[in-house]
Amino acid sequence: MTRTLITNIGELTTNDPAVDGTATGTMRDAAVLIDHGRIEWVGAADAVPTTPEGYLEVDARGRALIPGFVDSHSHIVFGGDRAAEFEARMAGQKYAAGGIRSTVAATRAASDDDLRTRLRGFLDEMLAQGTTTIEIKSGYGLDVETEARLVRLAAEVTDEVTFLGAHVVPAEYADRGDEYVDLVIGDMLDACAPHSKWIDVFCETGAFTVPQSRRVLEAGIARGLQPRAHASQLGTGEGVQLAVELGAASIDHGTYLAEADVAALAASETVLTLLPGVEFSTRQPYPDARALIDAGVTVALACDTNPGSSFTSSMPFCIAVAVRDMGMTTAEAVWAATAGGAQALRRDDIGVIAVGKRADLVLLDAPTRVHLAYRPGVPLIAHVWKDGERIR
Amino acid sequence: MTRTLITNIGELTTNDPAVDGTATGTMRDAAVLIDHGRIEWVGAADAVPTTPEGYLEVDARGRALIPGFVDSHSHIVFGGDRAAEFEARMAGQKYAAGGIRSTVAATRAASDDDLRTRLRGFLDEMLAQGTTTIEIKSGYGLDVETEARLVRLAAEVTDEVTFLGAHVVPAEYADRGDEYVDLVIGDMLDACAPHSKWIDVFCETGAFTVPQSRRVLEAGIARGLQPRAHASQLGTGEGVQLAVELGAASIDHGTYLAEADVAALAASETVLTLLPGVEFSTRQPYPDARALIDAGVTVALACDTNPGSSFTSSMPFCIAVAVRDMGMTTAEAVWAATAGGAQALRRDDIGVIAVGKRADLVLLDAPTRVHLAYRPGVPLIAHVWKDGERIR
Repeated sequence: MTRTLITNIGELTTNDPAVDGTATGTMRDAAVLIDHGRIEWVGAADAVPTTPEGYLEVDARGRALIPGFVDSHSHIVFGGDRAAEFEARMAGQKYAAGGIRSTVAATRAASDDDLRTRLRGFLDEMLAQGTTTIEIKSGYGLDVETEARLVRLAAEVTDEVTFLGAHVVPAEYADRGDEYVDLVIGDMLDACAPHSKWIDVFCETGAFTVPQSRRVLEAGIARGLQPRAHASQLGTGEGVQLAVELGAASIDHGTYLAEADVAALAASETVLTLLPGVEFSTRQPYPDARALIDAGVTVALACDTNPGSSFTSSMPFCIAVAVRDMGMTTAEAVWAATAGGAQALRRDDIGVIAVGKRADLVLLDAPTRVHLAYRPGVPLIAHVWKDGERIR
Repeated sequence: MTRTLITNIGELTTNDPAVDGTATGTMRDAAVLIDHGRIEWVGAADAVPTTPEGYLEVDARGRALIPGFVDSHSHIVFGGDRAAEFEARMAGQKYAAGGIRSTVAATRAASDDDLRTRLRGFLDEMLAQGTTTIEIKSGYGLDVETEARLVRLAAEVTDEVTFLGAHVVPAEYADRGDEYVDLVIGDMLDACAPHSKWIDVFCETGAFTVPQSRRVLEAGIARGLQPRAHASQLGTGEGVQLAVELGAASIDHGTYLAEADVAALAASETVLTLLPGVEFSTRQPYPDARALIDAGVTVALACDTNPGSSFTSSMPFCIAVAVRDMGMTTAEAVWAATAGGAQALRRDDIGVIAVGKRADLVLLDAPTRVHLAYRPGVPLIAHVWKDGERIR
């Protein structure tokens, strides 16, 4: 385990309100000590309580340090791509949940090694963009064997594995949604629960009804999984209130929310995870994050990396869009992509730079975090530390 | 000079209509030979007319190869940044041309070495994002000495240097715009013309009037410079028609165009260079590139990298936004960012992969160019060749 001193940090975003009374806990001219993969000390650069001996010293040269991004929503175990569907959509075709089925066919046909190679490629790509924790969902298998393969492959690379057998009703169960739910909460759950932390459902017209979604989530909870849900991506519905009622850690999408949904979220411990890449790549209207935050909703940002509705894996890109099109300040967007993601995964060891937390850190090639929105599309990730080791 | 064979190219975008009768001249399973910095041969991977001896062989592994991006509009010689102005704008403040003056103060105060270090940093950043040719404007000096420094520094790194003394009227000439124009076309032009290829003017309310813009462009032309212009960024005006009349290679921005402007552009040799980063970062409405192309206008894409209205340097980002928000197909957007940029600079040696052209090439980490829009924000540049040498 490397001991590291990062000094001469121009702007340090800790997400520790104890620092300055704000959510981002921002310091200037700061330093951080790392020991055994954890944060050992945080403070002013001229007050480091040790000699640098035994520490690898990194001079941040006035640049900004932030917590590693926590991407709480991805679907990166799959085969094929849907570039042609994307092109058709950009030419005017509307996004529909049914496109998922084409990825299901490609995923079933892919070998474990193919899926693993692809998955590791996405992970490398994400690390290079500053993402140090990633949630990964199944949902492109939709049969017992393939769903079990997907959660097993995901569990090889992350603790945050989500069983999403209820992603869409597969073609072979067309018009027999209830029977498919029987399978999901029966043999499929049996096969997947041992590898999963989360139970998820796509509660939406074209996917699963509210009663079906309730069955899925309740069965998962009964097996010790924690609930989260996709809801209100394509229209309003009762999915948000169902998931809040069941104590979901996060409800994801929220493109179309009713007033009662906003009130329910604001009164709950449930995070609303916004996915700007989806609205960007499906040309849907952006949710008004400004109004949601002002109403008291806790907002996280995630990429929703998937071959259909959002094939970005770039948290900086999502931050830029959230600032431009959802009314978030950069401080809010960076918080949402780090501490917000951690909260959406019910994790208190990441997303924060404070003593005892995991040393997952990103040094930006920029003097402040504002540049993540000010310089859209520009690769601004200088270095990445994961569990205290510099991996980039 | 390295001789290189790039083979196993999954999708080759040549921009040579002779290939398939379309503007992008696209081939599958292709190969390219490079010799002495130029394209020696282009064709099917199984028909390479040489043995690989003496050639460095690069296996593209089915990925897509495109011409290097030609970014025909940048302002990357400057001091300071305007992150605070950006934050204020995102919080609701409107963009105005006057903000340029704060960069002028920082630029005048910066040393040559400071400006040079910064400039080279931007160039590296752009190369890493696939830009192999860059136009660079002066315009943050606005006095004879500083403008001359800026074109001199720009000329150290590119042939495409633009004298933009008429960027905005500096504070010390407030309400004396005509007198400032006298300076621009007098001593300032004398000092800058020897280092410049282009004369440019910001013809816009808050910057220069149409008669002032005519004086600037005509004076530059008389000195052997070629004209280009900023026009219709903040509102409609007569700038487009003036610049077309004077034979400008390109008119840049075009956020607000009247019907007569579109007709004048369509009937001319003048390119309209759209700058999606500006609309993104100023929250202005996007021009309708679809309608412009359908009306017969030749459209280029550029980043307009500058600290005020658009601090992106990412052509892939601009392509993604042009496809999402301006109605371009990916094929059109990639053409506009390569061959379109070359035409906006009146260059026929770049932007095309054909025998005898410069070997400026970009290998994407993706099977097709569609991924540049399909995967917004993701760094997809695998390798970059400039004048036949792999520089990344």
